[in-house]
Amino acid sequence: MVLLEFSMTPLGKGESVSPYVARSLEIVSESGLDYRLHAMGTVLEGEWDEVLSVVTKCYEAMSQDCDRVTCSIKIDARRGAEGRLESKVRSVEAKIDHELKTSES
Amino acid sequence: MVLLEFSMTPLGKGESVSPYVARSLEIVSESGLDYRLHAMGTVLEGEWDEVLSVVTKCYEAMSQDCDRVTCSIKIDARRGAEGRLESKVRSVEAKIDHELKTSES
Amino acid sequence: MVLLEFSMTPLGKGESVSPYVARSLEIVSESGLDYRLHAMGTVLEGEWDEVLSVVTKCYEAMSQDCDRVTCSIKIDARRGAEGRLESKVRSVEAKIDHELKTSES
Amino acid sequence: MVLLEFSMTPLGKGESVSPYVARSLEIVSESGLDYRLHAMGTVLEGEWDEVLSVVTKCYEAMSQDCDRVTCSIKIDARRGAEGRLESKVRSVEAKIDHELKTSES
Repeated sequence: MVLLEFSMTPLGKGESVSPYVARSLEIVSESGLDYRLHAMGTVLEGEWDEVLSVVTKCYEAMSQDCDRVTCSIKIDARRGAEGRLESKVRSVEAKIDHELKTSES
Repeated sequence: MVLLEFSMTPLGKGESVSPYVARSLEIVSESGLDYRLHAMGTVLEGEWDEVLSVVTKCYEAMSQDCDRVTCSIKIDARRGAEGRLESKVRSVEAKIDHELKTSES
Repeated sequence: MVLLEFSMTPLGKGESVSPYVARSLEIVSESGLDYRLHAMGTVLEGEWDEVLSVVTKCYEAMSQDCDRVTCSIKIDARRGAEGRLESKVRSVEAKIDHELKTSES
Repeated sequence: MVLLEFSMTPLGKGESVSPYVARSLEIVSESGLDYRLHAMGTVLEGEWDEVLSVVTKCYEAMSQDCDRVTCSIKIDARRGAEGRLESKVRSVEAKIDHELKTSES
């Protein structure tokens, strides 16, 4: 299974881009994949083709009315590993003797 | 104020690197800066020099026993904006009429 | 047209990963797309589906014998723009009155 | 020694941002560090503090007249390794039996 983090931003639409980001999140939340939104992007979990297909749909939506679109993607693919949206965070916490501020708090 | 997301990983230390990530999170949590850990990295909020100084300390710690270190950093600097670890997520949620899975849920 | 920069690295295969990178570059150079290899990644130019398909092939090759694969991708999609592997660099150079060290020098 | 790749872009300054990128490249080329500009960013080589200091100077220049600045950075730090702007590319080429399109061609 694959964790894919991405953020997609239009250039040339001014300084505030949250309306465009909201459209992407509609697509993400309707995808059926598990995900987490944080302040700098969204992390999806699924098979390689599934997670890339969500990013492609977001691009298709954004490019309809944005002539320039930038996107950064980070992927962590690990064979046989599932449920890592939470387990990766837990794994770090388990090695530290005090509480961390996490996305699941 | 600046949001800085980073992830730092040693190469050549095997497939499981959470012990090294835990050391970075110790440094992050002792920095006094606000932060959020998620499955693909950590987001810090602070002034430019403050957030980069935390990344530098993590690098100094990891490079002590790792000969090769990779790091990816993404920065979003916005004049006058504060508290964006939460407000950026809220701003997207406010534009969508159903609940999102967020780092603050 | 889309510029896509990517780097793909196995975790758990030691500190020197150029044999795995070389396999990706075989796939890139056989793709028929224009590209440039630099010290931190490879930049492809093509349509969205074309460039992502090359990255997918590289992942399929690498994941055959690597249990954990990390990948970072950056995309710059601009409607109607072509030949930007060179023109983006030229556009910056034209605004500076002395020579720059570029990928095309 | 450290390879640091970065790209820095203002948000809210329209779709064409090469005048801002040119200012960063002035700073890079006056830094004294070795570097290569490519279509998606610039790669610097130097010690950790040296390369981060160049990025900081670029940020200070851009933030003077841009209220929102985004920056992505990728670092590859390897103990004892020098001259990797070229040697990393050569190392991949040496493992392939045909020519690659590189930043040094």
